[in-house]
Amino acid sequence: MNILYTDDTICAIATAQGGAIGTIRVSGKEAITITDKIFTPASGPTLSGRKPYTLTFGHINGENSEIVDEVLVSLFRGPHSYTGEDSTEISCHGSSYILQQVMQLLIKNGCRAAGPGEFTQRAFLNGKMDLSQAEAVADLIASTSAASHRMAMNQMRGGFSRELSQLREKLLHLTSLMELELDFSDHEELEFADRSELSQIASQVEGVINGLVQSFSVGNAIKNGIPVAIIGETNAGKSTLLNALLNEERAIVSDIHGTTRDVIEDTMNIKGILFRFIDTAGIRETSDTIESIGIERSFQKLDQASIVLWVIDSTEAETQINALKDKVIPRCEGKKLILVMNKCDMVNNAEQSDCLKEPSGATILTSADSGMNYEMISIAAKQREGITELQKLLVKAAALPEVTQNDVVVSNVRHYEALSHALEAIHRVQEGMSIGLSGDLVSQDLRECLFHLAEIVGGEITNDEVLGNIFKNFCIGK
Amino acid sequence: MNILYTDDTICAIATAQGGAIGTIRVSGKEAITITDKIFTPASGPTLSGRKPYTLTFGHINGENSEIVDEVLVSLFRGPHSYTGEDSTEISCHGSSYILQQVMQLLIKNGCRAAGPGEFTQRAFLNGKMDLSQAEAVADLIASTSAASHRMAMNQMRGGFSRELSQLREKLLHLTSLMELELDFSDHEELEFADRSELSQIASQVEGVINGLVQSFSVGNAIKNGIPVAIIGETNAGKSTLLNALLNEERAIVSDIHGTTRDVIEDTMNIKGILFRFIDTAGIRETSDTIESIGIERSFQKLDQASIVLWVIDSTEAETQINALKDKVIPRCEGKKLILVMNKCDMVNNAEQSDCLKEPSGATILTSADSGMNYEMISIAAKQREGITELQKLLVKAAALPEVTQNDVVVSNVRHYEALSHALEAIHRVQEGMSIGLSGDLVSQDLRECLFHLAEIVGGEITNDEVLGNIFKNFCIGK
Repeated sequence: MNILYTDDTICAIATAQGGAIGTIRVSGKEAITITDKIFTPASGPTLSGRKPYTLTFGHINGENSEIVDEVLVSLFRGPHSYTGEDSTEISCHGSSYILQQVMQLLIKNGCRAAGPGEFTQRAFLNGKMDLSQAEAVADLIASTSAASHRMAMNQMRGGFSRELSQLREKLLHLTSLMELELDFSDHEELEFADRSELSQIASQVEGVINGLVQSFSVGNAIKNGIPVAIIGETNAGKSTLLNALLNEERAIVSDIHGTTRDVIEDTMNIKGILFRFIDTAGIRETSDTIESIGIERSFQKLDQASIVLWVIDSTEAETQINALKDKVIPRCEGKKLILVMNKCDMVNNAEQSDCLKEPSGATILTSADSGMNYEMISIAAKQREGITELQKLLVKAAALPEVTQNDVVVSNVRHYEALSHALEAIHRVQEGMSIGLSGDLVSQDLRECLFHLAEIVGGEITNDEVLGNIFKNFCIGK
Repeated sequence: MNILYTDDTICAIATAQGGAIGTIRVSGKEAITITDKIFTPASGPTLSGRKPYTLTFGHINGENSEIVDEVLVSLFRGPHSYTGEDSTEISCHGSSYILQQVMQLLIKNGCRAAGPGEFTQRAFLNGKMDLSQAEAVADLIASTSAASHRMAMNQMRGGFSRELSQLREKLLHLTSLMELELDFSDHEELEFADRSELSQIASQVEGVINGLVQSFSVGNAIKNGIPVAIIGETNAGKSTLLNALLNEERAIVSDIHGTTRDVIEDTMNIKGILFRFIDTAGIRETSDTIESIGIERSFQKLDQASIVLWVIDSTEAETQINALKDKVIPRCEGKKLILVMNKCDMVNNAEQSDCLKEPSGATILTSADSGMNYEMISIAAKQREGITELQKLLVKAAALPEVTQNDVVVSNVRHYEALSHALEAIHRVQEGMSIGLSGDLVSQDLRECLFHLAEIVGGEITNDEVLGNIFKNFCIGK
């Protein structure tokens, strides 16, 4: 591994703009001496003469002996720091003018402005954490729900790494047995005994890797939100419903630009579960050609969803359901479908009570596709009636298993891909053993499996491109 | 002074949302014990058993023995802390979810969520700083230019307080001499000797207070920006000019909602000087009645400005200047007037070179009002030609004196008002002495002068309403 530019001293503003307090981090072999150049303690020795894990009050000296700020400096010495290097943290008043001035002074005295995630990258390069733990730092900062927080916390604290380490031990044991078999390959009776033990171990390994691969669908839903498509004709009230849903919970809607994700769609946290709403173009009742194009586009988006909200105007329920049911129903297989009978306030009184009791679409749909498993709810999106009930249905439809901080759940696409490759390799190992393939060929697949597991935690095999991709989406100062 | 609720322990998130690091402050007599309840050090004793000014790594314990975050806790013991009370600062990963969880745990264990500025208010109530220093904390955080930063830093570090303290000593000396005079009022020869010394001291005091009052125009311009009105007919290019000015410097335009100010208009920092642009409605060439209403409205805003940019369409310079000059010129007395000849690219070539060398409005205006002191510049706002030159003219027109960190400049309206009252009182003292008013009457005015000076630094005379007004505009966590 090419140890990228870890020889210099980096600095970055680690807090967002606009608070009462702003913190600047400095890390590298000159961190303490450079900080000493711009900082005068209110009393006592300079930082170089102080113990680590102490705080020192004093001021930052600007040019022309002006005082830039009164600050508190935290002192750390490698390897007992986040990065594993000598580090300081300068806690200033939260003025961007002051923070910029302090940054300029640090740079003038020999620091370099850190890139995204460079502190965590150094922590990884200096052996303070493995790659999956480093990735969890970004996930932790981006976490917006109890479940995503739990997953990231377990991963950051090494839960996933321990699981992988146990797998690695088992695989190494398997490999050594395989090689033992190779050494004694003349003794046929020895081979048969080993092969039985080998396939038992391989089967255990396969089970664990398979479990991890399977956990990704849950992990991904927790991290990025359960994808919910809202479909329906344009006049059915799709936008009104989306607004009603989002406004209800606007306070906890996350607009944070992902540290590990690119762009986030409208997401909403309902009872600790993150939902991600997929915008589909309303299906218009125009000429047949245009309509089918509109339907096709919406349906492509629908395919990404695991929950589908089909919004229907209650005043023309039959027409709308009949117009789309043959196209909607087949596409919803394997998904949770919720029929949202909107505008139930606009149905006349007699009908309305019916509508609330047993929505008019029920029989239509049941007769159309009796095998389809769906829920139905009547709402009035504009008046925000029934929204809470709809949210309950969404939570029920999400049906995510409870994740505790002890559960290892894969939520990272890179890990998922590496595990999938590892799973393929272990399958080849099992297949090879079942058809009596020679030990050296099986051994190759075992090594490939080990390689893919090692990719996750990183190390000597990790190249700069992989590192670059991982850390470029971190925030500055982390 | 009613010591407002300083008996409980407060907590607040002190950093803005979205950074790599988030900090929670805790202050009050239970700060350390409450933090201990939710925090487990990675090794060693609990916080209660540790020395102040140390950092401890460990984790925050949530419910069901879940780990909320791995954190660093800073420890302070009163009176050696910002608030003067026992305090901790919990440095977490910058996730709003985590910060909210930690806040909830603190509150569940006996903390109260702090109001705006409550930490600084406690620092004041506990005698760590006077009121003018407390106010400077908010100014420091809001500072966006070198000059506003210098003013706030001087005030926070007690420069203003020292000046006031010297004034107070002089006034107390004067008062004691006056009372001495009262005691010996039978001895006429003694009185005359004293009166001469008294008026000398009173004159010194008057000089200092007057200087401080006068400095407010500079201080206010530095803090809130130099008010610049852009006037002109709607088709003259007023909006284009404003956009050109702002876009040029968009990167350093401040959108921070003031901690001590209410709403900030469009402001721009040019070469370290803050300008505040006052929007005036364009004067329309419609019927006479409407036009005059439009002019009146714009002129009311013009009155607040110290610099006036009069934007004129070069292609109809004569008409536009003649239409408004009789109304503009008299209102610009005491202000800096800059004639901005816009659209100079649209004048034909021969004229254009004229326009650039000597703008066509020059002679017109000079003949109209020969005594008026003004500058003139040709620009093409749409093409952004001449904008840099216009900025130079603005900086020149600003003509702010250089402020150093040793200069005491008043920038706070509350201080300005108190000083103005103090000035009136000292004037009455001087008047009383000159007309030979009896010592006890003069003494009353001296005490009033002292009272107004004391209002600035605060103390026993400060009531809750004043405190409330000062701290309500602080940010939370400060």
